[in-house]
Amino acid sequence: MDRSRLEAFSDGVFAVAITLLVLNLTVAGPGHGELIHQLSSHWPSFAAYLISFFVIGIIWVNHHVLVKTFVVVNRLLLFLNLVLLLFVVLIPFATGLVAEYMSAYLAHTSGGGDVRLAMALYSTVFLGMSLGFAGIFEWTLHGERVANPVPPERHWAARVRFTGGSLAYVLALVVALFNAIAAFVIIALIAVYYIFENTPASSAAHGAPGEPPAPGSPDHDHDHDHDAPGT
Amino acid sequence: MDRSRLEAFSDGVFAVAITLLVLNLTVAGPGHGELIHQLSSHWPSFAAYLISFFVIGIIWVNHHVLVKTFVVVNRLLLFLNLVLLLFVVLIPFATGLVAEYMSAYLAHTSGGGDVRLAMALYSTVFLGMSLGFAGIFEWTLHGERVANPVPPERHWAARVRFTGGSLAYVLALVVALFNAIAAFVIIALIAVYYIFENTPASSAAHGAPGEPPAPGSPDHDHDHDHDAPGT
Amino acid sequence: MDRSRLEAFSDGVFAVAITLLVLNLTVAGPGHGELIHQLSSHWPSFAAYLISFFVIGIIWVNHHVLVKTFVVVNRLLLFLNLVLLLFVVLIPFATGLVAEYMSAYLAHTSGGGDVRLAMALYSTVFLGMSLGFAGIFEWTLHGERVANPVPPERHWAARVRFTGGSLAYVLALVVALFNAIAAFVIIALIAVYYIFENTPASSAAHGAPGEPPAPGSPDHDHDHDHDAPGT
Amino acid sequence: MDRSRLEAFSDGVFAVAITLLVLNLTVAGPGHGELIHQLSSHWPSFAAYLISFFVIGIIWVNHHVLVKTFVVVNRLLLFLNLVLLLFVVLIPFATGLVAEYMSAYLAHTSGGGDVRLAMALYSTVFLGMSLGFAGIFEWTLHGERVANPVPPERHWAARVRFTGGSLAYVLALVVALFNAIAAFVIIALIAVYYIFENTPASSAAHGAPGEPPAPGSPDHDHDHDHDAPGT
Repeated sequence: MDRSRLEAFSDGVFAVAITLLVLNLTVAGPGHGELIHQLSSHWPSFAAYLISFFVIGIIWVNHHVLVKTFVVVNRLLLFLNLVLLLFVVLIPFATGLVAEYMSAYLAHTSGGGDVRLAMALYSTVFLGMSLGFAGIFEWTLHGERVANPVPPERHWAARVRFTGGSLAYVLALVVALFNAIAAFVIIALIAVYYIFENTPASSAAHGAPGEPPAPGSPDHDHDHDHDAPGT
Repeated sequence: MDRSRLEAFSDGVFAVAITLLVLNLTVAGPGHGELIHQLSSHWPSFAAYLISFFVIGIIWVNHHVLVKTFVVVNRLLLFLNLVLLLFVVLIPFATGLVAEYMSAYLAHTSGGGDVRLAMALYSTVFLGMSLGFAGIFEWTLHGERVANPVPPERHWAARVRFTGGSLAYVLALVVALFNAIAAFVIIALIAVYYIFENTPASSAAHGAPGEPPAPGSPDHDHDHDHDAPGT
Repeated sequence: MDRSRLEAFSDGVFAVAITLLVLNLTVAGPGHGELIHQLSSHWPSFAAYLISFFVIGIIWVNHHVLVKTFVVVNRLLLFLNLVLLLFVVLIPFATGLVAEYMSAYLAHTSGGGDVRLAMALYSTVFLGMSLGFAGIFEWTLHGERVANPVPPERHWAARVRFTGGSLAYVLALVVALFNAIAAFVIIALIAVYYIFENTPASSAAHGAPGEPPAPGSPDHDHDHDHDAPGT
Repeated sequence: MDRSRLEAFSDGVFAVAITLLVLNLTVAGPGHGELIHQLSSHWPSFAAYLISFFVIGIIWVNHHVLVKTFVVVNRLLLFLNLVLLLFVVLIPFATGLVAEYMSAYLAHTSGGGDVRLAMALYSTVFLGMSLGFAGIFEWTLHGERVANPVPPERHWAARVRFTGGSLAYVLALVVALFNAIAAFVIIALIAVYYIFENTPASSAAHGAPGEPPAPGSPDHDHDHDHDAPGT
């Protein structure tokens, strides 16, 4: 198993999952009221589409930044990568649940318990994805598996960073049990944060050891315009 | 993040989005009238399929022409690329809306307001895609990010070209608010124009600076048969 | 536009289209009679799945054999390739039509006219795909576009070969207007023929000029086990 | 046909098939009882998703391990590969059948005969996939087609290994005819076994001749962390 085919298969799953999100965008169609009302009553579908799209996009970026540092591909890594993809593939399902139950809740055709459960599942899928990514990162801390390993004395600092990313989803999960809309806002803010976040976190992927990329954070190691693209 | 994986992920999204268009081609099936009548009353589905297929195909060609000039891949570019893909993924949804409401309108089972709104959304998605592509082009005008940058004195000429492409979709959007079929014809004509257009626009991608590829226009820099293909 | 991204995008479309065929395999589910009866009454769905799967698989093989001979990629070729893919994407739709109307016809819930029309459309989509592939082949006959061009004096012999492939689908189309099951058998036989056909047709792709690969025929230029795979 | 495009197309099919599994995860939605009950009554959907996801993931790993040893790609191989993919594409359909009929059976809305048939089909699809993979392995035993061929005197030992993999699915198929849940457990155990199995089986792919990778088993040849990844 070489790195390139790991990337090709993962890219395929990311691309299909991100595109399948569109299947959750549906309206009942002609004969079910004016289109403008159908669309406006389904605004949670569009909000959930936006959030899930960027979450998958961000994790794709991070996946690549991390994978390109690997000098080793072993059986455990492939299994950890499958766990990550398992949750990525679940995102369109969880997005659809949130879209449907949030819309129904706002239209008073579904109770608050259901929408809170849907939002908790949505948080859980993102949490699982975050933990799957953390698992791959943990794998890089052992053996001589990456080009620029994090030195042992900084392992815990790196793990804390990762824990932070996952804890944000744990927070969303807990909030979801009490208030679905608040949890939705938190999940949206996490995505926005990772789009704009700009820390030295990517140095691990770049050469300077000791700072892992944050889980779910964008590609920091190309903020310098003169990086030559690889091939 | 190297250029090749940006291409691989984008190609995956383009390929899945263009193929998902087929899911909008459905008939009610046996027991819902003769098949010939079902198909003929759904001609807008087939027209919308054709248009959307070629629009995605053309934007894919342009995406590649532009991307292959990049010597830098940074965080901002990845975000801009995600914005472009966000609208590409919406195309099957907007295509389905137009297909459904245009068919219903022609069968007098849906009002004119709904079909005009559907067509306006269809125009808006294409406009968003066009602006997303323009954003990536704007990115190439700054720093030393492409192999053959447009010289500063020609930036505005280049931007005007791009504005032209987006303005055509703005026109379709405005017309859609008054006459859905006229807007449909305009969108179809834009696609046909870009299929056959043959300008020196691709020189920027080729080496001669100063002329960007038009947004949504086909690959002009391979009109000379003796270009050697890359690998 | 280099050859590799043309291949990547086309491969993506082929892979998605071939996998979307599975969406036509559905049963009504629990509460709609015994599963064994649901499955057996839908045998045309499985037969159509098998045929369409191998037709897409074969055309994918031929596409690659032809594309790897290109030394030039121009705008016209990209357009012709989009026309080919346009019909490939339609295959899951046409397959679904045949599956549904053939099953309904056998269950006496749909008339013979509908199933004949569905089969005619199925034949037409394959004919369009065959013509799209012939268009790409015709493109290779002009200019210096391929590594081993067919010499001019053999152009017509090559075209006749291609015409033969398309004529088989024309025959299926004409027969479909009179007898859907006979046309179904013809289409199946064409697929079987191309799976087992073993002619010197691939020499054009291999080095010896003058013999184009037959449209829809498998990859003949690797019958010799000692061919070194490319990279 | 070179090896790289065989991999690209196969990777595309694997990635789409594994992602389409998510389409089987649906709930009836608002107005059909509490979400928690809908989800809990559909636990077989989630169990089947998990199993099918890992089975496809494992076969993808093995496919790559075997393919990268090929020094030859011929027509027969392409046909055998299509047979393997034919069954891979069927997995989402068979997974959906099991999910639906197992859930209905547990809710006493469907008889035991139907769920046993669904489980038998599920086993059969996996068996077909296993045999398709065995066919590709058998192809490697003849001619000089792989880098490190299994020596003739060990062919039968290698085949026995493969037969073992397929026999496990035959067992599941036979058990399914009597007890669907027991067969489900067996199929789950086969997947778990292959995730954790750690034998010298991958030596054939690595250089030491004579031990083929087990069908469906993970990538054993990268258990040594210092393997350099290929490109």
